[in-house]
Amino acid sequence: MFHLLDIIGSMAFAMSGALTAMNKKLDPFGVFIIAFVTAVGGGTLRDIMIGRTPVGWMRDINYVYVIVMGYILAILFRKKFDKLRASLFLFDTIGLGVFTLIGLEKGINIGLHPVICIALGTLTACFGGVIRDILCTEIPVIFRREIYATICILGGIVFFLLRKLDLDNDVLYLTTSLVIISVRLMAVKFKWYLPTLEHK
Amino acid sequence: MFHLLDIIGSMAFAMSGALTAMNKKLDPFGVFIIAFVTAVGGGTLRDIMIGRTPVGWMRDINYVYVIVMGYILAILFRKKFDKLRASLFLFDTIGLGVFTLIGLEKGINIGLHPVICIALGTLTACFGGVIRDILCTEIPVIFRREIYATICILGGIVFFLLRKLDLDNDVLYLTTSLVIISVRLMAVKFKWYLPTLEHK
Amino acid sequence: MFHLLDIIGSMAFAMSGALTAMNKKLDPFGVFIIAFVTAVGGGTLRDIMIGRTPVGWMRDINYVYVIVMGYILAILFRKKFDKLRASLFLFDTIGLGVFTLIGLEKGINIGLHPVICIALGTLTACFGGVIRDILCTEIPVIFRREIYATICILGGIVFFLLRKLDLDNDVLYLTTSLVIISVRLMAVKFKWYLPTLEHK
Repeated sequence: MFHLLDIIGSMAFAMSGALTAMNKKLDPFGVFIIAFVTAVGGGTLRDIMIGRTPVGWMRDINYVYVIVMGYILAILFRKKFDKLRASLFLFDTIGLGVFTLIGLEKGINIGLHPVICIALGTLTACFGGVIRDILCTEIPVIFRREIYATICILGGIVFFLLRKLDLDNDVLYLTTSLVIISVRLMAVKFKWYLPTLEHK
Repeated sequence: MFHLLDIIGSMAFAMSGALTAMNKKLDPFGVFIIAFVTAVGGGTLRDIMIGRTPVGWMRDINYVYVIVMGYILAILFRKKFDKLRASLFLFDTIGLGVFTLIGLEKGINIGLHPVICIALGTLTACFGGVIRDILCTEIPVIFRREIYATICILGGIVFFLLRKLDLDNDVLYLTTSLVIISVRLMAVKFKWYLPTLEHK
Repeated sequence: MFHLLDIIGSMAFAMSGALTAMNKKLDPFGVFIIAFVTAVGGGTLRDIMIGRTPVGWMRDINYVYVIVMGYILAILFRKKFDKLRASLFLFDTIGLGVFTLIGLEKGINIGLHPVICIALGTLTACFGGVIRDILCTEIPVIFRREIYATICILGGIVFFLLRKLDLDNDVLYLTTSLVIISVRLMAVKFKWYLPTLEHK
């Protein structure tokens, strides 16, 4: 179940990467690479920082297949994406929740401080998109407008608070994901933004 | 022989980095760093992803010497590079072939899946240039125009097909390099490009 | 003492990152991330390249606290920074000296060649700022104008020359830091720049 959600999230991230890259008029290889790094970039960065090498996607060929599939779907349906925007957004939000949890878990497994675990969760969920934007020479969208990463941090805090209640692991994971997913959906519906900080 | 080609490739990559950086009017230190990362960036990224640390160039001081030499040559001859363009292109193409093979080999050595090995070969050969372009705030050239990475992937596929024939290792390596080098030369001569993918 | 300087340096780097990010009109989360990577980016890159994982800031929660403090200070006093420029510059210069030494030391500890150790010191001191500029899509300032990295390299050379004199470690470290700090202060006071290298 958890693994299935990981796959859905990876595919959604790959598609969002491919769509961004096509807007930049890249060639098919460039589009593929952007799709790939959007999907695995956050987890790769996390893995190299904690010394879990070879990094995740090198040890499970299924990630490559899922990303290739997301890439092909994005190319085939690229002219229909206005209609599909809602589903893609939902998948992307599932990815956000699942990837945050995966990052939290890896941090806990090697005994890191809760604050660092939350950082790892946020990194896993958000930095694929940061690398995508850097490769397209844009200031990362999550630094500018969306309260995307803030939701991951919130989810991480909820996770550690709930963890004190000695809940079953499945309940703990499910609740945290649902918090992340529903806050994101509300944030977009009600247009919650962070104000920009201006210097002078 | 193989090591000699590695050195020629590193020097060519360092020179191509230095030339790009000089076009951006960087100072001598900036030019040096760009030359350095163009030469070792791909291999460094590969090494940290597979956990081969300290990364390659830290363990063999010769890389530094070769890159310094490429850097000095690029500065000295920077006004004559139109005449030297053909030789530099040839060296760069040799680098492409050799670096792809080095990446493939490292992946095979630690038992990774062939598809992942091909990804490692492509990463080794192409991501120095990607980091170079990012540091110069350009969308990486290999995502836009040149069928550069595609040739590495093709070379990787040829490698694994030939490997089934139980050839001698030297023959296997030489053939793969020659395929990569000659396809690249033809691609440039006959102006083979990938079309861009447009979104709507 | 050394640890105290490390903290002062990290805080100064976090503040300089936050100020850069506020100039780019990022949201509070974006400003925090830029502050964070400016402070720990160089050390993180060094640690993953030498295989010292989990990377430094994950193992000592104090870094997070110091960076959060620098971030808050930068936001609170952002309208007064013209007056504070001199102190911030001094802290930043202390950071430069201390971080160079930390990088040198890590390289020596694992037996790397002196030239590589100097590269590690320079990387530790300068690449937080490089990543900061890349995330803000600017060509890194140290490649363009300031003789910032050159001073780290010079400091590294002084370090290895002095080391042959069999000095006490504290004297060695203190002298090297003072060289770096005073050359930087003079460089700014007397406006020492590197010329740009132009291609044709």
